[in-house]
Amino acid sequence: MAHITVSVEYGIHSLLWLVGQEGKPLSSRKLAELSGVSPTFLAKIFPKLEKAGIVCAAEGVRGGYELAKAPQDISFLEIVDAIEGEKPLFDCQEIRARCPLFGKGPPAWATSGTCAVHAVMLRAEKSMREALKSQSLGDVAQAFGRKAPSEFWAAFQTWLAHEDDPRSGKPASTQRSKGRRAR
Amino acid sequence: MAHITVSVEYGIHSLLWLVGQEGKPLSSRKLAELSGVSPTFLAKIFPKLEKAGIVCAAEGVRGGYELAKAPQDISFLEIVDAIEGEKPLFDCQEIRARCPLFGKGPPAWATSGTCAVHAVMLRAEKSMREALKSQSLGDVAQAFGRKAPSEFWAAFQTWLAHEDDPRSGKPASTQRSKGRRAR
Repeated sequence: MAHITVSVEYGIHSLLWLVGQEGKPLSSRKLAELSGVSPTFLAKIFPKLEKAGIVCAAEGVRGGYELAKAPQDISFLEIVDAIEGEKPLFDCQEIRARCPLFGKGPPAWATSGTCAVHAVMLRAEKSMREALKSQSLGDVAQAFGRKAPSEFWAAFQTWLAHEDDPRSGKPASTQRSKGRRAR
Repeated sequence: MAHITVSVEYGIHSLLWLVGQEGKPLSSRKLAELSGVSPTFLAKIFPKLEKAGIVCAAEGVRGGYELAKAPQDISFLEIVDAIEGEKPLFDCQEIRARCPLFGKGPPAWATSGTCAVHAVMLRAEKSMREALKSQSLGDVAQAFGRKAPSEFWAAFQTWLAHEDDPRSGKPASTQRSKGRRAR
C-alpha cells in the first residue's frame, strides 16, 4: 500500500466538487457518485475531514457537506493528515542501542540525541510535508477549472438539480445553475 | 507499516559497520550480530545491496561483504531504492476519469497530462527523494564516529579478532586493530 493511500485520493477528488458550492451542501453519497468511488468508503472519510475543520456538515433534507473555509486555505498536508492521521515515513527502532559491544546497556554517548539515521529520514519527511503544505485545494481546483469547458459545468448543474428531485426526473430548482465553477 | 521500512533501517545500520573495513569483508551473520538484528532477515537484504552495486561479496573462509565504493558516494536514496524497490508515495487510480457526467467515456481534456492531484503528490515525492539523495552513508558514519570514544573502536577490533578465531578464544590477528574508525 502506498504511503499516501486511496482514502486521501478519494477525499481530495470529492473535496474538489465542493469548491464553488458554498451554501449548497452535497451529501457524501452524491460526492461518491460524482467521483465514481464507493459511497460507504467515502462516508468514513468525511467525518475525519469534518473533525479536522476542513468541511462542515449541514443537517436536514438538503443536508450534506460544504467546505469550512476558502479552498486556498486548505493545504494538501492538512487533508493528508486529517485522513491518514499520524503516520511517520520511517519508524525508528533505535537499532543503535542494540550493539553487543555495549554489554549490559548502551552508554549515554550512543543513545543521546536523535539517531543519525533517523535524522536523515526526518529531514526527508519534512521536505515531503513542506511540499504538501505548499499546495492547496484551491490551486488544484483552478487547474481543473482551466481544463473543463463551460458545457461541463452546465452538465454538472443539471445533474445536481436532477439529483435534488429524483421523483420528477426534472430539475427541482434553477438556483443551482450558476455557470462555470472553479473545478 | 512505515513507507521506509525496517529493512532499510537494518540495512543502513549494518552498512555503517562496513565503513573503514575496506579489504576486510564481514559476513551478514557478523553484521547482524553487531546491529542486534535477525541474521536471516539481514541475509535477504544484502543480496539486494550487492545487486545495486553498494556492496560486493568476497568468497572464501574470510568472505563476506564490503562496500563497493566510497561511503561518501553511497546516498541514502540509493540504499532505500535498492532495498525497497520501486515504491511510489502515492498510487494514482485516475479517479478523474470516473465522473458519470462524462457518459460512456472521459473526454480528452479530462484525462490529458498528469492528474493535478497526482502532480502534487509527485512533487512531494521528489522533495523527499532529493532529501534522501543529499545525505550519504559517509555523512552518517562521520556523525557516529564523532560520538564514539576510541575505547569503543578498540573493543570493536577485539570483537572482530575473537570472531575470526573462536576456537582459541583469543584474537586470531592483530592486523584488524587499526584504532579509531569512521563510525
